[in-house]
Amino acid sequence: MSVSKITARDIASHKSPPAAVSGVSIGGYLIERLQDLGVRDIFGIPGDYVLAFYAQLEKSPLRTIGCTREDCAGFAADAYARLNGIGAVCVTYCVGGLSLCNSIAGAYAEKSPVVVISGSPGLNERFNNPLLHHRVKNFQTQSNVFRRLCVSSAVLEDPYIAFREIDRVLDAVLRYRRPGYIELPRDMIDVIPEGEYIPKTVKPTSDKNALREALNEAVRLISASQRPVILAGVEVHRFGLQKQLLELAEAANIPIATTMLGKSVISETHPLFVGVYEGAMGQEEVTEFVEKSDCILMLGTFLTDINLGIYTANLDPSKCIYATSEKLRISHHEYHGVLFGDFMSELVAAKLKGPEQTLPSRETETAVPAIESDAPITISRVIAILNNELDDSTIVIADAGDALFSSVELSIHQQAEFLGPAYYASMGFSVPAALGAMAAKPDLRSVVLVGDGAFQMTGMELSTIVRHGYHPIVIVLDNEGYGTERLLHRGNYTFNEIHSWNFAKLPTVLGHGTGYEVATEGQFADALRTAWEDRETMSIIQVHLDRNDSSKPLARLAERLRNKV
Amino acid sequence: MSVSKITARDIASHKSPPAAVSGVSIGGYLIERLQDLGVRDIFGIPGDYVLAFYAQLEKSPLRTIGCTREDCAGFAADAYARLNGIGAVCVTYCVGGLSLCNSIAGAYAEKSPVVVISGSPGLNERFNNPLLHHRVKNFQTQSNVFRRLCVSSAVLEDPYIAFREIDRVLDAVLRYRRPGYIELPRDMIDVIPEGEYIPKTVKPTSDKNALREALNEAVRLISASQRPVILAGVEVHRFGLQKQLLELAEAANIPIATTMLGKSVISETHPLFVGVYEGAMGQEEVTEFVEKSDCILMLGTFLTDINLGIYTANLDPSKCIYATSEKLRISHHEYHGVLFGDFMSELVAAKLKGPEQTLPSRETETAVPAIESDAPITISRVIAILNNELDDSTIVIADAGDALFSSVELSIHQQAEFLGPAYYASMGFSVPAALGAMAAKPDLRSVVLVGDGAFQMTGMELSTIVRHGYHPIVIVLDNEGYGTERLLHRGNYTFNEIHSWNFAKLPTVLGHGTGYEVATEGQFADALRTAWEDRETMSIIQVHLDRNDSSKPLARLAERLRNKV
Repeated sequence: MSVSKITARDIASHKSPPAAVSGVSIGGYLIERLQDLGVRDIFGIPGDYVLAFYAQLEKSPLRTIGCTREDCAGFAADAYARLNGIGAVCVTYCVGGLSLCNSIAGAYAEKSPVVVISGSPGLNERFNNPLLHHRVKNFQTQSNVFRRLCVSSAVLEDPYIAFREIDRVLDAVLRYRRPGYIELPRDMIDVIPEGEYIPKTVKPTSDKNALREALNEAVRLISASQRPVILAGVEVHRFGLQKQLLELAEAANIPIATTMLGKSVISETHPLFVGVYEGAMGQEEVTEFVEKSDCILMLGTFLTDINLGIYTANLDPSKCIYATSEKLRISHHEYHGVLFGDFMSELVAAKLKGPEQTLPSRETETAVPAIESDAPITISRVIAILNNELDDSTIVIADAGDALFSSVELSIHQQAEFLGPAYYASMGFSVPAALGAMAAKPDLRSVVLVGDGAFQMTGMELSTIVRHGYHPIVIVLDNEGYGTERLLHRGNYTFNEIHSWNFAKLPTVLGHGTGYEVATEGQFADALRTAWEDRETMSIIQVHLDRNDSSKPLARLAERLRNKV
Repeated sequence: MSVSKITARDIASHKSPPAAVSGVSIGGYLIERLQDLGVRDIFGIPGDYVLAFYAQLEKSPLRTIGCTREDCAGFAADAYARLNGIGAVCVTYCVGGLSLCNSIAGAYAEKSPVVVISGSPGLNERFNNPLLHHRVKNFQTQSNVFRRLCVSSAVLEDPYIAFREIDRVLDAVLRYRRPGYIELPRDMIDVIPEGEYIPKTVKPTSDKNALREALNEAVRLISASQRPVILAGVEVHRFGLQKQLLELAEAANIPIATTMLGKSVISETHPLFVGVYEGAMGQEEVTEFVEKSDCILMLGTFLTDINLGIYTANLDPSKCIYATSEKLRISHHEYHGVLFGDFMSELVAAKLKGPEQTLPSRETETAVPAIESDAPITISRVIAILNNELDDSTIVIADAGDALFSSVELSIHQQAEFLGPAYYASMGFSVPAALGAMAAKPDLRSVVLVGDGAFQMTGMELSTIVRHGYHPIVIVLDNEGYGTERLLHRGNYTFNEIHSWNFAKLPTVLGHGTGYEVATEGQFADALRTAWEDRETMSIIQVHLDRNDSSKPLARLAERLRNKV
């Protein structure tokens, strides 16, 4: 079996900082470094405290993509970062920055390397602590908030260390694949620090002895195993290790399951792909296959409640090799100082050989049954019919709720072709994320799966999508309310109901796009087909669902969660 | 001159907590106390960590108003609090709470008493620190963020002190008229604390000697003055002191100017009303009148950059008596321990008499010139024509940008009939604020003034507005971009441009309302008239403006700000 070709889906490669820097402004250096690291587009909204930096951006090769709202810019930058390897968002002070908190928190929780850039009042304006507009408690309020939400942060108050501070934040963003915060007081943007700056790049390295010992133990366990399996998580993609993962799996013939958050980290049509593992919540065959393994390689996997099927996972730690960027644990002991990437590379180099195994047959591999034209459309059938259309150049972006849960049954064809907030679970992620995805990978076709409640939060970001000539297919799963909550807490509560929108009429407001309104299988299949063939315009398909319809995965999840709510 | 009648516009009166409490759940006590303090409606969005509390709310007399997004719920609660004396918003953990940061920061900055209630994971779920969905860094991330944005906060983790903690936060919210944060782990909501809780209400009192000395000095200065003037700020309304302000001014015949943030703190048709003072940015006659005064009573006024005309105010501190809830300063010295309300009451009781003064004539008092039917409509003419329609039961809500700056020239007829983010200046305030205003004061007619950029941020909250049968008039000032920024930083920057929406078509999407599209004075006047007479439906008037049009106040502000950007 040959190693799969990894092509345009690779994350951006990084250029090291120059050997020495002089004569560059603080804003200019930041722009240069962002480009070195692979940023080509920056999302955001200008405001007076950041206008001077926006003016610098406009003169640079970076493209600024103005969004309708800052939180949408945050989601877009997050999706862009997931696909491109790094993303950036640029906003004004407080009214802009504090509108980003939720989307940046989501990027932190799900490990997405987003650089947050915010303007702020100039240092020379702050004299005597006056009440400048946009201020909350004091001039540090915003940076104090972002310290809670980012892996690293800096306020560029001192030209003598500004470049070093920029590099420190960017290094941390890439090392941990989590957001970093850089605040630019507006009178610092054009300042050119005196003297020459010599960047120091410290590349973290593994503890050689720990790495060797861990590797030997892992190799011994895998080699002795009769039924090894890989449970691949999202970090494999974040750290650009898909190639190693496939080399390891293919050479040793080890089957691969993924977690929900790691869905699509390898192509789901790959012969070694078993399915998405979710404990008791998932498909029985997949659960059984993983849990019966005598050696589970958990690679880049977060042990979150949703990934673990709300703690129904039944994985014996004595049989697990658990490697992430944060931790390397084999059975009941931990190794410190071993980098995830080094461990993966060494595993590949060990040229393991595994036994032949019979993979479970997968529900989603069955052909789509004939369309029952007049049958009311259901979420499960939306997924089945959509699954039939997916090809190698589609990316599916699912919003929180049943859009996400149901799409576990989609069969994703390439790496990184599924995006969803599978841990942080913020509603409103999908439409702005589609903007970010299309900016990062304009050759891919985006399909958005979004509930009516989630769409009402951020769906108007379609405005920016049509402005830039993108043509996603947006499928609005319209069950007239918060469907997941109806299942979690039974009772006829009015707070789960929302106002109905004629989503299909939105093109009239936006001056662009085609709307479809469907209620039967036949109508949905026809609309999807027409939309698929239309490569010129944005398509929005409003799918009228029964209020009590839900996918099988959501029904199983609700069953588990209900006793906690 | 008789004291103006203060009627339904009064802020809610507060009931003290009961003498002793037992047998009540933690969630139940919070709901009771909110009602005691005058909350009748609570804005928000449910989510699994707060569903049990929502179920309690649904059984209580409180009405829950579900919004499309959490930040909109925050703005609605803020506006509700400004008009009602207290407001509340209820959301789920992190994905909900962190979406509130910007609107709650605005409430802090502009002193609006909003109670933030958030659900969170149950304490018994947190064992071993698992990765529960919605979590960011640790279980304290959200409460740590809100500590930066609120005047007081509590996480109700311990039933023995939960009631006391609730009262502590609510007391601080009312005392400082700023937001407070209460987090309810979901397994605490139904817990009934053992034993009996005896609330202790500590009423803050003034230092008697300091109060007497300050009052004597103030009375001496005012009595000796030839041209005393009051510069009234927003705290007069927040602390319910309009009645005292009017008694003081009318008895002593002292003219009143307000700041921008304090606009409408008294009726702008009052004979003693001089105008809105904004330093060099404001109308020359008003500026001159205030700055030539030999005794300026600054009552409840924030010294913000916008209030002070971007620091063009020319007020001699030796001639100022500056009293707010935070500070009492006369000339160059400060008095500590004097409550703002006590100082105001004592000033009234002193029965001051002032000299007769000639007030400046006010630009906005001139009758509206005849409509030039075919003339292109401008912002100034929108304001002039709207001004002509305002009556005693109108409330105007202006968004950040020229909607706010231009409306300085509106003549507001009653107390508290103008709302705008005149210090924090967050775009997107107005439409959700209108929802809150209409819930708080359903007898008033709401008119929203909003730019196209601000509308694109939160305008879809019209969804909730039409769902509840409210019928505001929403005037969208459409100049195809961020007009204020175009003025602040000259140059043909693409980042100030936004995608055009057919705002007038939104009723098609929402299934309700009437849209108008106007470009001339005649069309605007006709649309406004028709909308004004329509008391059944929401009206949205899309006003096509020239891209470079701006009000005179904005032009003056831009002139001042430009050299700082």
